[in-house]
Amino acid sequence: MKINENYLNLQESYLFSTIAKKVTDFKAANPEASVIRLGIGDVTMPLTGSVIKSLHAAVEEMGNADTFRGYGPEQGYDFLREAVAGYYGQHGTVIDSSEIFVSDGAKCDVANILDIFGQDNKVLLPNPVYPVYLDTNTMIGREVGYIDANMENGFLPLPNKEQQADLIYLCSPNNPTGAVYSKDDLKLWVDYANAQDAIILYDAAYEAFITDEDLPRSIYEIPGARNCAIEFNSFSKTAGFTGTRLGYTIVPQELIRDGNSLNKLWMRRQSTKFNGAPYITQRAGAAVFTPEGLSEIQQNLEYYRENASIIAKGLDELGIWYTGGKNSPYIWLKTPESMTSWEFFDFLLEKAWLVGTPGVGFGANGEGFFRLTAFGNREQTIEAMDRIRKIW
Amino acid sequence: MKINENYLNLQESYLFSTIAKKVTDFKAANPEASVIRLGIGDVTMPLTGSVIKSLHAAVEEMGNADTFRGYGPEQGYDFLREAVAGYYGQHGTVIDSSEIFVSDGAKCDVANILDIFGQDNKVLLPNPVYPVYLDTNTMIGREVGYIDANMENGFLPLPNKEQQADLIYLCSPNNPTGAVYSKDDLKLWVDYANAQDAIILYDAAYEAFITDEDLPRSIYEIPGARNCAIEFNSFSKTAGFTGTRLGYTIVPQELIRDGNSLNKLWMRRQSTKFNGAPYITQRAGAAVFTPEGLSEIQQNLEYYRENASIIAKGLDELGIWYTGGKNSPYIWLKTPESMTSWEFFDFLLEKAWLVGTPGVGFGANGEGFFRLTAFGNREQTIEAMDRIRKIW
Repeated sequence: MKINENYLNLQESYLFSTIAKKVTDFKAANPEASVIRLGIGDVTMPLTGSVIKSLHAAVEEMGNADTFRGYGPEQGYDFLREAVAGYYGQHGTVIDSSEIFVSDGAKCDVANILDIFGQDNKVLLPNPVYPVYLDTNTMIGREVGYIDANMENGFLPLPNKEQQADLIYLCSPNNPTGAVYSKDDLKLWVDYANAQDAIILYDAAYEAFITDEDLPRSIYEIPGARNCAIEFNSFSKTAGFTGTRLGYTIVPQELIRDGNSLNKLWMRRQSTKFNGAPYITQRAGAAVFTPEGLSEIQQNLEYYRENASIIAKGLDELGIWYTGGKNSPYIWLKTPESMTSWEFFDFLLEKAWLVGTPGVGFGANGEGFFRLTAFGNREQTIEAMDRIRKIW
Repeated sequence: MKINENYLNLQESYLFSTIAKKVTDFKAANPEASVIRLGIGDVTMPLTGSVIKSLHAAVEEMGNADTFRGYGPEQGYDFLREAVAGYYGQHGTVIDSSEIFVSDGAKCDVANILDIFGQDNKVLLPNPVYPVYLDTNTMIGREVGYIDANMENGFLPLPNKEQQADLIYLCSPNNPTGAVYSKDDLKLWVDYANAQDAIILYDAAYEAFITDEDLPRSIYEIPGARNCAIEFNSFSKTAGFTGTRLGYTIVPQELIRDGNSLNKLWMRRQSTKFNGAPYITQRAGAAVFTPEGLSEIQQNLEYYRENASIIAKGLDELGIWYTGGKNSPYIWLKTPESMTSWEFFDFLLEKAWLVGTPGVGFGANGEGFFRLTAFGNREQTIEAMDRIRKIW
């Protein structure tokens, strides 16, 4: 028996384990220090009232023989796919429910979608990047090319027509940089993909943080995107489902390559290798899109947006360069005095008892940058910025 | 962009869609017919009281900021992995919780485990077989070899030492045949796998139906299995979780190949391409393994076992050859008078208003056989056997 030797080419990520160790050591040496964590991308607000109500109701159904649900449709229940289509419709984007595939999270879908593509496609990743995009391609032995995101392009790289690509990863609002593509910029990517016969894998997990009405919340707001883009979305950041696990992927019917429908290929993949998301969590997801549910999550989103705004204003006052902080829960800042990402990590931890994420952990172009998140609580976010002001 | 052309080699399965169409057509032509379905492998009993209680409690936790859970460990929460280890311990099998990976179902794990194996492994499948084993290998372009299960070997084929294999699929109690390997027979497979340096992918999803204490509930009851076997298990059939989605996979620490730990490779796969099962359903899974939960599921299992026994006794009276019916929810019977599987399907539907599953849908060796399941309700199961008696 032979293992998949591509796994041996994976870079071990020591990013979060190194952070954890440094914090543990620091706290052991400084037991009096009240460490504030603005590093993680996990939410802190609990599930909202209407979601909780729907979960209890669904649990009751599962305990009664007359309303019990066994195997559900692998693509997701109609009630949820139609609710997702309705949500997109509210923002002016028409998606048919046959194009929506419910899953246990966008991370799984972004990874698993690679199953339906051939081995010898050329992959284009921005640098810095969410590590899952890179690792999942490495696991199948596919080489990847990069496009530079940096201060010059505001961490929003545009396509280089000379660079060939078959699969293009875009994430907007971006993790880790918080930068958001305009419609015009995204149109350049769509035109480039269509010219190359490429597919854009568009990660829209943070779209709900967008407040600027001129910014696209879905790639399908861009003409031509239905011919070249698959979009991934999630309840994790929108509605606090990081531990509840629910997401969805949109595969337009127009995506035909060599006579093969990508929608049908993905359906075949999902019905063979997946058995649907739990009925209970699908009911919870549908509750998010009721008028009451949407109103509740707006309150949560506003809370996180205000945190982001507090961080952004603090950085503005100090004259620190950053992306994000608006239309995004992430703030990506330039470290001071040419510090490396890790030097700045140590500096912040020791001087301000504050934990963030070194940008270099997301790729070479992240060196000298640092990520803070808006997912903490209000009091700690205010306190964190006070501490940064004192040490800068 | 190129699609994964291996998908074009997949056989479209028309099994269940053809059954559905035939039943729909029959009911349209015969609106008075009370059709009984003993074809599906889905459960009908609702979740038990202690599972429902734990679900409500976990939902409450998720609605409160102090007890809310975000991202959990990709491998599963300690409380559930330790409960699984305890369950195995009750049956005399020692598994460390570090060897247990919680997921959203055994089907996903059986499919996804292939990620960690190299392309050029030789696969050995029994025929007939659960179609997922075949399709997932076809999707990655791997050719498979077969070993015949048939009346002569009681649908329990033994290894042929001349046949080379790297990955061997075994399912016991078997889907679709209901046949169960003895410890002695399973020992032959373990010895064969160890001699070949092969890995057995052991699907134990139906182990809870075993009542005969001499039969192995886990492959790890066989000496040597920790050096060659990965075991998949599920809450679906044990505790009615088909729509709740929870399973687990056991990868022993002893599984080292060329210096690589399969446990570590699977951990890398799961932490990159999966984000853990929902906290809520993991709490539900842990409730199954409490003394109260175990007592409740025994009642459900007894109900299904009694259905299986009713079917088996009916077939005994008619002198019909079958496997399963004991230690399994499936009954796999020889069709009468050399009828093909589909001829018998039509005969049963038209004459007895009864729906089962044609054995040929699981592979060529299933031709002339037919699967009934014990997952229906009592009244209908009794009625179904009365109807069979009348038409035989």
